[in-house]
Amino acid sequence: MKEKITIIKVGGKIVEESGSLDNLLDRFAAIGGNKVLIHGGGRTATAMAAKLGIESRMVNGRRITDEDMLQVVTMVYGGLVNKNIVAQLQARGVNALGLTGADCNIITAHKRPAGEVDYGFAGDVDHADGKMLAGLIAQGLVPVIAPLTHDGRGNMLNTNADTMAAETAKALAEHYDVTLTYCFELPGVMRDPERPESLITSITRESYKTLLADGTVGGGMIPKIENAFSAIENGVKEVIITSADAIDGIQGTHIVA
Amino acid sequence: MKEKITIIKVGGKIVEESGSLDNLLDRFAAIGGNKVLIHGGGRTATAMAAKLGIESRMVNGRRITDEDMLQVVTMVYGGLVNKNIVAQLQARGVNALGLTGADCNIITAHKRPAGEVDYGFAGDVDHADGKMLAGLIAQGLVPVIAPLTHDGRGNMLNTNADTMAAETAKALAEHYDVTLTYCFELPGVMRDPERPESLITSITRESYKTLLADGTVGGGMIPKIENAFSAIENGVKEVIITSADAIDGIQGTHIVA
Repeated sequence: MKEKITIIKVGGKIVEESGSLDNLLDRFAAIGGNKVLIHGGGRTATAMAAKLGIESRMVNGRRITDEDMLQVVTMVYGGLVNKNIVAQLQARGVNALGLTGADCNIITAHKRPAGEVDYGFAGDVDHADGKMLAGLIAQGLVPVIAPLTHDGRGNMLNTNADTMAAETAKALAEHYDVTLTYCFELPGVMRDPERPESLITSITRESYKTLLADGTVGGGMIPKIENAFSAIENGVKEVIITSADAIDGIQGTHIVA
Repeated sequence: MKEKITIIKVGGKIVEESGSLDNLLDRFAAIGGNKVLIHGGGRTATAMAAKLGIESRMVNGRRITDEDMLQVVTMVYGGLVNKNIVAQLQARGVNALGLTGADCNIITAHKRPAGEVDYGFAGDVDHADGKMLAGLIAQGLVPVIAPLTHDGRGNMLNTNADTMAAETAKALAEHYDVTLTYCFELPGVMRDPERPESLITSITRESYKTLLADGTVGGGMIPKIENAFSAIENGVKEVIITSADAIDGIQGTHIVA
């Protein structure tokens, strides 16, 4: 019997406003057993870049990461956001360890080849080291992972946090029964964000096709759900999309293999 | 018989110029056995603060760390400088793990009480967890430590890198035969920086008094040597002050208990 592990991915406004971050960290600290937190930080990076006179350019919701922007995301994701979360988890008695993909070589990637769009120093994940992560977790440590990887040749790479979460979950599935929770501002995937009762409680590959076709799912939700399917189809036991108030994992949208 | 460990502290210009950093990391990668790297980053923090319109104020060579400056040092030391070093060590086959004092709770501190000077969010170290560090090192990991601690109540604290090195060395002395090398721009403590033959090859508490009295040692060298004595008098086997070109530890100024 494998032990259980809970992987929570938080992004968007949640980690970037102190009230909602406090709430999230209280709930995360209360989760029993093994756990991992994966965070974003795009709004903070955009704000910091603006202060430094660096323009943020996004294509299809993804950031163009030139050399200056790579410096910004390395310091904002790996330093400011990550260490703030680590210190605040320590204050809650959680023995957090902040990591990027470069630390302990846990997640390697390659620079995305320039196609129609050149995303610059954006990393597509090659390998996540579940054994190394499991070793750290077995010591009672709680990894807090920033959305950065490295190419093994000395370069950090900016990497989508939803993808980091899916890859981490898949790598840990060999060692644990993994529950992966994508946590954002809404209670889950909604037919109408204004109506709580329109929450879609589960999505299969079949129903996903319909949701795409009728426009219920679009924009940034598409890569999130693709990552969720990638996880559930590769050994992860349970994948849920829900709000920060529901990371105990009962409510929300379950992604079903 | 304890295993040996080499702890290298690098600061100043060395980690902040790519040529000298490359040289240092080549030499560090070549050190056999257990090792730890502790780095500074003050010049990068000052430059980043200036770009953000934040003035750097120093008293007695130490930075006044208000709330804005704490954000800058957290992102520069913990993110930009630390992850750059980690990625470049990974490229050299060293399984580096970037840490601040908050990560794994390795170094706790308290905010320095305001005296004649209020240094703001500056941390005076309370405890370094040698057992936790030794556990990570035993897994083949190489800690790369940024000059940041935390207070256990959710706040990061800016902490002198020489002090971080001494405290880390003392904490590891229970588990290893520790050599601590402070590495900077000069070959060691010099009577005349212009004349290589004026290198002082060893300093005792007795000779230190004379060097202070005759003005050979002054300014930023005083806290460095005080930290070195604190290490050698608390279980560290060997403490050397030398240049980045000599981290194999034969040349330089040996601090003798």
